[in-house]
Amino acid sequence: MKRTFSNFLAICLAMVFLVVAAAQAAEPLPSWNDGKTKQSILVFVEKVTKPGSADFVPASERIATFDNDGTLWPSHPMYTQLAFALDRIKALAPKHPEWKTTQPFKAVLDNDLKALAAAGEKGLVELIMGSHAGMSTAEFEAIVTDWLDKARHPRFKRRYTELAYQPMLELLAYLRAHDFKTFIVSGGGVEFMRPMTEKVYGIPPEQVVGSTIETKYEVKDGKPVLMRLAKIDFIDDKAGKPVGINKFIGRRPIAAFGNSAGDREMLGWTGAGSGARLMMLVFHDDAEREYAYGPANGLPDTKFGTFPQSLMNEAKQKGWVVISMKNDWKSIFSDK
Amino acid sequence: MKRTFSNFLAICLAMVFLVVAAAQAAEPLPSWNDGKTKQSILVFVEKVTKPGSADFVPASERIATFDNDGTLWPSHPMYTQLAFALDRIKALAPKHPEWKTTQPFKAVLDNDLKALAAAGEKGLVELIMGSHAGMSTAEFEAIVTDWLDKARHPRFKRRYTELAYQPMLELLAYLRAHDFKTFIVSGGGVEFMRPMTEKVYGIPPEQVVGSTIETKYEVKDGKPVLMRLAKIDFIDDKAGKPVGINKFIGRRPIAAFGNSAGDREMLGWTGAGSGARLMMLVFHDDAEREYAYGPANGLPDTKFGTFPQSLMNEAKQKGWVVISMKNDWKSIFSDK
Repeated sequence: MKRTFSNFLAICLAMVFLVVAAAQAAEPLPSWNDGKTKQSILVFVEKVTKPGSADFVPASERIATFDNDGTLWPSHPMYTQLAFALDRIKALAPKHPEWKTTQPFKAVLDNDLKALAAAGEKGLVELIMGSHAGMSTAEFEAIVTDWLDKARHPRFKRRYTELAYQPMLELLAYLRAHDFKTFIVSGGGVEFMRPMTEKVYGIPPEQVVGSTIETKYEVKDGKPVLMRLAKIDFIDDKAGKPVGINKFIGRRPIAAFGNSAGDREMLGWTGAGSGARLMMLVFHDDAEREYAYGPANGLPDTKFGTFPQSLMNEAKQKGWVVISMKNDWKSIFSDK
Repeated sequence: MKRTFSNFLAICLAMVFLVVAAAQAAEPLPSWNDGKTKQSILVFVEKVTKPGSADFVPASERIATFDNDGTLWPSHPMYTQLAFALDRIKALAPKHPEWKTTQPFKAVLDNDLKALAAAGEKGLVELIMGSHAGMSTAEFEAIVTDWLDKARHPRFKRRYTELAYQPMLELLAYLRAHDFKTFIVSGGGVEFMRPMTEKVYGIPPEQVVGSTIETKYEVKDGKPVLMRLAKIDFIDDKAGKPVGINKFIGRRPIAAFGNSAGDREMLGWTGAGSGARLMMLVFHDDAEREYAYGPANGLPDTKFGTFPQSLMNEAKQKGWVVISMKNDWKSIFSDK
């Protein structure tokens, strides 16, 4: 009996070995076309994870940071959070009759995109404050969760959360399988992202760095709540990204992924550390399957996720790998 | 041959089982005396980790937050970071002749504790700014690391990092062994703590929440640096603790540990969540082995880590467990 049980265990163990071996043999990053770009990922991961390698990095220091909009999911025809803000303004309008005559709210209610663009960054902040503040953090989370479930992308007619880039999901999983800790470092609002990052990207809330608005601790009916104030606390964009990385993570990443001028400093900060580094930029050159914009390489200049020629030149000069969506990715979105 | 190998594997597997079983059988929390306090930890962990339990919490949501000063290491005769600041002021004094005649710096240079106390919170902030700002984050990390290596606690004559409370180190390890993610949430400066938390507490930098000063991204000699500015960014104390937890972690803890009035809101915020919760306060009632202060229970009122009677009453009313260092802990520090 004992002998039989031992044999049974041995067989189980052998089966586990087979399954593991099969998984290891499976081609990594299946949605990436073979070539230099994919190779740069595989070579980097091999270098920093192989014991005895000159570039070996202990697991605890394998920090990888990812921008969100345009890097992990689309930022067109506008940032998802802006689409959320516009929907919120419309939903809240009955309680704010003054918005009918006040810019930039009037522009939103009139669907007047020209007036909206004219309101500029100041107008954008007013829209965010009008739609993202004045409720508790718990209420805001419920509002975001509900919106993400109901809203659909205007072109792809799917939930925004279903539009995560399949090759990037594979990259996140591949890095984590090699003991990387994956973080989001985005200009987007941290409390707009956290309700979905774990489910969509496998990134838990505590590994999401983003812009924040101030909150205030209050006790209401004997229960503590955090109220969201109409005041910006921190903008996690451009030079704010290294600041945010230092403040929230406290370690320099060894790999960083972005897609626009807002990611320049994050990639520069990552690359300035010693040892092997991987910096990559998603370049949107696929109008057919997603969007094409620059203005680098003569593509149209759009408002959401600008990739200037100077960034393309800097990438070349510093060895940052530019991912061509058109050439490097077999598929853009998951079929699920 | 094959059969022999199978048997060999089976034996290996059996040995693994034995080792695991032995580890599980080992008494948990050996530096805690048996009794209600220790029991409250064991019962809570069993409840939230046992599959099928009504109070079961998925591993990803097992967030535990720990105050640092007075909870994980001593806060007497003064906060360790204040001792660091005073040493820094003395070291920097030759470059600041004006400090000889300016309070609160003069008080530090004269070792005039009365004048220092009279400078109050405003004076404290000036000392922190004078000693913690004006260098890059990398330079500051090197300064802190060097100081932590050289400085000795005035009473115990050991490095501050050797004075982590042994029962709390066991508690941290015990929680992590049950898939908790352990965080520090301290009023102390985050960049003062991060150089030592991984080595001392097993808590990586990205799981340290604390007070922050503003930093500025600059490019010096072609290299990006973050310069520490003499401006407070965030105070992670009292009502700031739930704010910090929300901002940096983005999830409500299910367990929180503190030792003073500064932890009241963190424990309240933790307890206000639904499901099983564990809130504990270290009470310093052991003048012989460490320190004794309150003013709760008639102990002397000290400046560093006040535990007022109102907190003792609130703990009783809300079911927060008060840890008596004298009665609940077999030993205070590690013998190593």
